[in-house]
Amino acid sequence: MGLSARIDAAVKGAIASGQSGRPPQKLASALEYAVTPGGARIRPTILMSVAMACGDDQPALSDAAAAALELIHCASLVHDDMPCFDNADMRRGKLSVHRAYGEALALLTGDSLIVLAFERLAHGASVDPMRAASLVLTLARRTGMPGGICAGQGWESEAKIDLSAYHQAKTGALFVAATQMGAIAAGQDPEPWEELGARIGEAFQVADDLRDALYDEVTLGKPAGQDELLGRPNAVAELGVQGATKRLKDILGGAIASIPSCPGEAALANMVRAQAERLTPVAPTHQRS
Amino acid sequence: MGLSARIDAAVKGAIASGQSGRPPQKLASALEYAVTPGGARIRPTILMSVAMACGDDQPALSDAAAAALELIHCASLVHDDMPCFDNADMRRGKLSVHRAYGEALALLTGDSLIVLAFERLAHGASVDPMRAASLVLTLARRTGMPGGICAGQGWESEAKIDLSAYHQAKTGALFVAATQMGAIAAGQDPEPWEELGARIGEAFQVADDLRDALYDEVTLGKPAGQDELLGRPNAVAELGVQGATKRLKDILGGAIASIPSCPGEAALANMVRAQAERLTPVAPTHQRS
Repeated sequence: MGLSARIDAAVKGAIASGQSGRPPQKLASALEYAVTPGGARIRPTILMSVAMACGDDQPALSDAAAAALELIHCASLVHDDMPCFDNADMRRGKLSVHRAYGEALALLTGDSLIVLAFERLAHGASVDPMRAASLVLTLARRTGMPGGICAGQGWESEAKIDLSAYHQAKTGALFVAATQMGAIAAGQDPEPWEELGARIGEAFQVADDLRDALYDEVTLGKPAGQDELLGRPNAVAELGVQGATKRLKDILGGAIASIPSCPGEAALANMVRAQAERLTPVAPTHQRS
Repeated sequence: MGLSARIDAAVKGAIASGQSGRPPQKLASALEYAVTPGGARIRPTILMSVAMACGDDQPALSDAAAAALELIHCASLVHDDMPCFDNADMRRGKLSVHRAYGEALALLTGDSLIVLAFERLAHGASVDPMRAASLVLTLARRTGMPGGICAGQGWESEAKIDLSAYHQAKTGALFVAATQMGAIAAGQDPEPWEELGARIGEAFQVADDLRDALYDEVTLGKPAGQDELLGRPNAVAELGVQGATKRLKDILGGAIASIPSCPGEAALANMVRAQAERLTPVAPTHQRS
């Protein structure tokens, strides 16, 4: 099974477990809606790539970790799209969850996906309880307060933003979770893997800022120009398009250089290069003034 | 330290860990606001009582479990109070979180409390990884989909409600979590403890229906008469006040009879009786027609 098919199967399995028995049907359906279509699945791809570079000796744990991380990411998208945050009507080229199912079910969908993520990891205890608990701890730290993606969103309500803490939490956290959870799933110490995740996170943030500034809504599959519109800090406002593009390349070079020594080091470097090409914006379909 | 002080210390410790370092200040403050004042802390009290009845050989795990369960309960109150659900202005005699901090921070507060709950349990792996993972699994199953409190809320969006599944999920789930997590924290098999939790949950639901029908907003510390107003199914509509009061007593008798044989069986029965007295509504201050 290819990496992408393996991740899809892991995410589908997790959603199916959340829909089992006699669930309330609309919420059960919304769980699936929120995780499809898959998009790039970039976080679980990084996680799986690190696990494989480290030997992937317990594939069931890597599968659970990849699914859990993607569920948390999708939960954050569902909640971030809600009217009290971005008020986004579209996501991945279709109606956002709160537009398709209403706000109450969108709120519950996000909550349920968060919980399901930790449930999947806990099931891994039948394989290795220490690794399972370590996966829960790492994912929780990168999701909640004081340093996870919830904290990142929380910074947007402050009068004075700590920009470094903001970016690390809002975008970086789940990429650090990706590299560290990949290492943990394969029985390795997560600490040396933090830098790779942090650098990929920085690169992703800059790439996202570039896309938000350069692309239109149809290309993005979500509203464009939101950073400028909402006055959010971003790399394009700070460095211009050319400066931000150069910074993106520098960061990715540093990411590749930071990969710890491991059996699959070369393949992992190739994966980061492939993600880099995917990330870098190309000729915009419609450049806004 | 008394039980109530021990639970308070565990909850405070959990919140402090979510506020450590350089967090966004408003969200950090909202976490604390959402769990204070403590109210009856009935779920962690049951959890601790079961753990102590089973010997409480790893108090750090019982503390983590009690805190985690209370955080999940408080998260559900924060989200349920939001405009897309109950739109409640008041909770525990003060402004609800979304009224005090705004909707965006209320949403993030609930999310952060959920994540913090699982993080606390995962820390328990340093004591016993298998028990820690089992606590995560049990709490997740009783919180999310398809059978936890999220599912319970989800039923309220269905045209046709499965009443038994609805009550089990909406109110029963966290009481089952309480008894089972207490057993797990003390190294016991959780299965025989399910019935006690389920029966306490039923009793609590009937008592809550009685209070909603009999008490005014000042006494409740939240809006009264919501079940009738929102056409929600409830025991008073079904059985009348007298019938519901009798049913409450019968259920509590069954709960005490279901306590599994354990070293602290008698003390636990006394705790259930004490909770029963606390639950049963007394002379209403203002009976609505």
